[in-house]
Amino acid sequence: MNQFTFYNPVKLVFGKESLEQLNDMVKAYSNGNKVLLTYGGGSIKKTGLYDEVMEKLSDFEVFELAGIEPNPRVETVRKGVEIVKAHDIDFIVAVGGGSVIDGTKLIAAASKYDGDAWDIVTRKAQVNDAVPFGTVLTLSATGSEMNSGSVITNWETNEKLGWGSPLVFPKFSLLNPEVLYTLPEHQTVNGIIDSMSHLLEQYFNEADNTEVQDQMISGVLKTVMKTGPIAVKDPKNYEARETLMLSSTVALNGFLRLGYVGDWATHNLEHAVSAVYDIAHGAGLAILFPEWMRYVSKQSPARFVKFAEDVFNVEASLSDEDKINYAIDELQNFWTSLGAKQKLSDYGVNAEDLEAFADKTLIYGPFGNFYKLQREDILAIYKAAL
Amino acid sequence: MNQFTFYNPVKLVFGKESLEQLNDMVKAYSNGNKVLLTYGGGSIKKTGLYDEVMEKLSDFEVFELAGIEPNPRVETVRKGVEIVKAHDIDFIVAVGGGSVIDGTKLIAAASKYDGDAWDIVTRKAQVNDAVPFGTVLTLSATGSEMNSGSVITNWETNEKLGWGSPLVFPKFSLLNPEVLYTLPEHQTVNGIIDSMSHLLEQYFNEADNTEVQDQMISGVLKTVMKTGPIAVKDPKNYEARETLMLSSTVALNGFLRLGYVGDWATHNLEHAVSAVYDIAHGAGLAILFPEWMRYVSKQSPARFVKFAEDVFNVEASLSDEDKINYAIDELQNFWTSLGAKQKLSDYGVNAEDLEAFADKTLIYGPFGNFYKLQREDILAIYKAAL
Repeated sequence: MNQFTFYNPVKLVFGKESLEQLNDMVKAYSNGNKVLLTYGGGSIKKTGLYDEVMEKLSDFEVFELAGIEPNPRVETVRKGVEIVKAHDIDFIVAVGGGSVIDGTKLIAAASKYDGDAWDIVTRKAQVNDAVPFGTVLTLSATGSEMNSGSVITNWETNEKLGWGSPLVFPKFSLLNPEVLYTLPEHQTVNGIIDSMSHLLEQYFNEADNTEVQDQMISGVLKTVMKTGPIAVKDPKNYEARETLMLSSTVALNGFLRLGYVGDWATHNLEHAVSAVYDIAHGAGLAILFPEWMRYVSKQSPARFVKFAEDVFNVEASLSDEDKINYAIDELQNFWTSLGAKQKLSDYGVNAEDLEAFADKTLIYGPFGNFYKLQREDILAIYKAAL
Repeated sequence: MNQFTFYNPVKLVFGKESLEQLNDMVKAYSNGNKVLLTYGGGSIKKTGLYDEVMEKLSDFEVFELAGIEPNPRVETVRKGVEIVKAHDIDFIVAVGGGSVIDGTKLIAAASKYDGDAWDIVTRKAQVNDAVPFGTVLTLSATGSEMNSGSVITNWETNEKLGWGSPLVFPKFSLLNPEVLYTLPEHQTVNGIIDSMSHLLEQYFNEADNTEVQDQMISGVLKTVMKTGPIAVKDPKNYEARETLMLSSTVALNGFLRLGYVGDWATHNLEHAVSAVYDIAHGAGLAILFPEWMRYVSKQSPARFVKFAEDVFNVEASLSDEDKINYAIDELQNFWTSLGAKQKLSDYGVNAEDLEAFADKTLIYGPFGNFYKLQREDILAIYKAAL
C-alpha cells in the first residue's frame, strides 16, 4: 500500500432510535440557536419525517431550504448560502440522501467565503472554514453521510464536478434503517449497485499489498450480494435494510481505502452518459462496470483473477480466463436479477453518441488509477456496452 | 446489531515516512511549545528512534518521562502528571507500544484533574478535559494507538483495570512498519496472537445480524493467519510487517465492532493468570482462547459453526460438531506453529491456583457478553487449559 493518512471524525449514530439524539447533537455542536434545515423534493413531508425532525428541533429557530435536487445544483446552493449569511445561521441539518448532503456541504463551506460557491468546487478558492452541520439520512447509496466529498452540478457551465475538504465532514449522521422502508424499488436497487460500485472502484486499485483491505471489501461485497435481494423482495425487512445501510456507509467512508485511491474510471464513464441521457447513476454503472471489467481484465488480468477468488469463490481448477469470465458474468447476472438493464441502447443511447461521451470523459485527460484509459479504450468499452 | 454510536477522530498516518510529519502534527494540535516525551525501557535509544524523534521535536522544549513499564503503573503515571503540571506542558508525544500509550492516556487526563490519577481509572472522577497527545508506535498489538481505552495497574491495591474516555483519543498516530524489524520474535508472535484475540472477542458477540462486521473480521483474521508466519520467519519483510501493523490497528479501533461489545471473557480469564505468573498476555490468550471455545461451543454452538465456515472454509459435508472441532484445532495449531505453548502448566501453573484465578475473575461477578461464565464454567475452562 502507499503511505496514507486516515482521518474521519464523523459521529455515526445508527439504529431505530437514532433520531432521538438530534436535539442533543445539534446542541453539542452548535454555538447558537439558529438552524438551517435542508432537504429535497418534499418526500420527507409525506413520510412524516419532516414533522419528527421539526419537533426535535423545537428548541431552535429553524430556517428552511427545500428543493435540493438530485445532482444538486450550484444555484440552489447559492440560495442556501444567502439564508445562512442573512440570518447568521449557527448550524445546518441536512435531511435526505447523498444529493441533499452534497449540496449542504457546499452551503456549509461557501457560507464562510466571500465569493461565489462555485469557486470552491473549481478550487479557485480554498476552504478555510465551514458552518458545522449534521445529517439525517433518508437514502442509502452514496456514503456522503460519513465522508468529506461532494459532487455539484453547474448548468451554466455544463459541468458536474467533485470537490472535498476535511472541514466538511458532517459533525454527526443519524441513520435509521426504517426510513428506507418506503423507498421505491428502483431506488433500493440503484443504491445496492451504487454501493457495490464504490467497493469495486476501490478493490481495483493502484497499490500492492492490500490484502487486509481486499478481504474487508470482498466481505462487504459478498454481504451486499447476499442481502440485496431480500430487501428488494421484502422492503420492510429490518435486518436486510440494516445490513445494506451500514454497508453503503462503510463502502465510502475511507476506511476500506487505506493506502490507495481506487480506479474510479467507470464513474467517469457513467457521468458522461447520465449527463445527457436520463439514466440513474446506479443503472448506468450496472451496464458499464461489467464492460470495463471485460476490457481491462484483458490488459491486466492478475487482479481480476484475485477478484474472482476473493468474491466469487471460483473453482481452483478453472483457467485464469474462465475465472475472470465467471466472476464478471456472475456480477452482471446479479444486477440483472435485481432488474438492472445490460445495454445503454435500452435507454435510447445511439452509436453516434459515443464520441461525444468520450470527449466529455477526457476533459482532464486519460483517467483511471488502476488502468489508465485512452480514447480507444473508452470507445471500445462504450461500444461493448451499447 | 444493537443501536450504536461510532466516533474515532484519530488521524492515522501510516508508512515508511510517517515520522516526517511529527513536527507539523505537534504544531497543528499544540497550543504552545512545551512537549512531554513519554517512552518505555529505553529500547528506542538503542534503535536510534529516540534521536530521530528528538530531532523532529527540535522546535519544542522537550521534557521526558522514561520507564513506563509493560502493564503501566499508576505510580509512573503520577510522575508524568507532576511534570505536566509543574511545567505547563502543552502536548504529549508517546513513543512506544500499547503500555506507553495507555500510560500516556492517563497522564493526559489526570493532568487536567486536581485529585489522584487512580480516581479516573476507578471512575471516582469523570474525565472532563485532557492534555492533547499523539503517538509514534513501536510495537503492534494492542490497538491503543487508535482507540480511547487504557489499562492501568495499581500494585498498592493489586488491581489491573481498564478505563476510557472520548477525550483520550490520540490526536494522531504515526505508524512505520519498519520499526517492527528489530522486535524479538516472541514479541512478534504475541502481537499476532493479541490482535487475533481482539478479532475473536468481537466476532463472538451478543448481537444478531452482524454479517457485514463478521465478514470484515473474518477477512482480517484470515489475512493475519496468512501473513503472520512470513513476518516471524523473515522479520524484515516490509509487506508482511505492513499488513500485520495495519491489521492490529484495525482489530481494535472500534470500526469492526459496530453495534455490539464483543465477549471479552477470555481477556478476563487471562488477566487473572498473568497477574500472578510471568506469562505474556498473548501467550496466555493462546492457551485460554481454544479452551474457552471448546467449552462455550458446547453450550451455544451455532455461532461457532458460522465461525468455522467464515474463517476456516470448512467442508459443508461435515457435522456441526466436526466443523467446530476442526476450526478450534486449526486455530490452536496455528498458534502452536508460531511457538505458542498449549498448557498453563508449561508456565508452572498448578491445579491449586485455579480457585484463586476464578476468584480474581469474578470480582465484578459473572462475565462474558456472548456467553456469561459462572464459577463452574470458569473452573472447567482453567482445568482444560492446565
